[in-house]
Amino acid sequence: MTLSDLADMAARIAAEASRIPLSYFRAPLDVIAKADQSPVTIADRETEAFIRAELARAVPDHGIFGEEHGVSGSLTGAAWIIDPIDGTRSFISGHPLFGMLLGFLDAGRPRIGLVRMPALDETFLGIAGGAATLNGAPIRCRTTRQLTEAILYINEAEKILGADPARFARLCQAGQTRRMAYDCYPHALVAAGQVDAVVDCGLEPYDYLPLVALIEAAGGVITDWAGAPLGLRSDGRVVTAATPELHRELLALLAA
Amino acid sequence: MTLSDLADMAARIAAEASRIPLSYFRAPLDVIAKADQSPVTIADRETEAFIRAELARAVPDHGIFGEEHGVSGSLTGAAWIIDPIDGTRSFISGHPLFGMLLGFLDAGRPRIGLVRMPALDETFLGIAGGAATLNGAPIRCRTTRQLTEAILYINEAEKILGADPARFARLCQAGQTRRMAYDCYPHALVAAGQVDAVVDCGLEPYDYLPLVALIEAAGGVITDWAGAPLGLRSDGRVVTAATPELHRELLALLAA
Repeated sequence: MTLSDLADMAARIAAEASRIPLSYFRAPLDVIAKADQSPVTIADRETEAFIRAELARAVPDHGIFGEEHGVSGSLTGAAWIIDPIDGTRSFISGHPLFGMLLGFLDAGRPRIGLVRMPALDETFLGIAGGAATLNGAPIRCRTTRQLTEAILYINEAEKILGADPARFARLCQAGQTRRMAYDCYPHALVAAGQVDAVVDCGLEPYDYLPLVALIEAAGGVITDWAGAPLGLRSDGRVVTAATPELHRELLALLAA
Repeated sequence: MTLSDLADMAARIAAEASRIPLSYFRAPLDVIAKADQSPVTIADRETEAFIRAELARAVPDHGIFGEEHGVSGSLTGAAWIIDPIDGTRSFISGHPLFGMLLGFLDAGRPRIGLVRMPALDETFLGIAGGAATLNGAPIRCRTTRQLTEAILYINEAEKILGADPARFARLCQAGQTRRMAYDCYPHALVAAGQVDAVVDCGLEPYDYLPLVALIEAAGGVITDWAGAPLGLRSDGRVVTAATPELHRELLALLAA
């Protein structure tokens, strides 16, 4: 299978898997009360189990690393990274901006990145060296080069503020427009040419690795806060930017 | 026309008006470049003009107060409050959580509250002394009585932090789960029984008055930070809570 075939397969699996979290989203209270576990846990596990089963059937020799069910096979060759529900706190509060993330790595390098928004019926897909699309239509990062002109999303504001109030204050002065947010969607909006940059932190590999090929295929830059490429051992602090110039300005602001 | 007739009319007008902001949402760059004004300004004005024209045709003796085109007629009797696009910064960054707000007041008292989410195709509607619905299905606030068990949304975190860092720090310790957000949607999620409470500030009458009948019809409480009912002259600081007990705890926390 080519990368493009694998990407098509990932998009199909994510679209089919979407019915699972949606069946638990805003579930009536009696459905929740009957369950032994919280609906979000059940939805997470069922969704990931479905995706893993589909992958195991289609590409049995590929490794898998998922948030809920851990590692199967090896992650050093062809491997998939899964976050079945990215945005648990959105999910449990009936907020539709929870995502489903699927990334494909080859020898540790991100090659396919997929962000699926089940409640919005949106699929953002990027292929390394290839196209970035939203529901099949081409998307591209904006060309904003100056931070003073940027629409900046600050994810996990509480964590950034708690870790370093001075840095948070600098971020709150940056950009033309700022917006506090969470999870995968602001990053996907950078790929879609709607948002210029996102600063994020506290992420796990299954949160950020599926973003990499999407952002890069759309022409953007995504690294850790020191400017290093993201890998399985990154520290979970992420900067996404529409252009290298914006990215450099944000690295400087975060380091200052 | 009864209140129920007026509410049906408001829901129809809001649904029809939704095509206007959606036609500008994520508009291609060449569409934006051709415009003399920013697309959000055009979308705001066109949307409000459409709603005002529909109201003027159906209820010509009612007063109107809209964000973009100001006051027509008198606001002391039957009157409508319009926010054509609530969440401008969401709108301009391609983020689907912008709303459209429509409130009906009778002698200054909120009687109908409508939150329309054009990109989500959701209409939250509440009638004073009557039902609260989401797309026609009944909704109801949760019964959470303790702040320690609450899902708390903090809107306009930057403003709350800037005005009083100690108060912001208290909010960041409150609730079982916290989420920074903006605009009408978290309030609507309180009415829908998904979120327990919202603290908000910096609002204008067209931002908060359309929420009142919705929250109250769903069984919740919405006031200013001092616990006073919301009116045309409130200071724009708003607390929405699923229960009176939660509301009291939040007022105490804000005042401490």
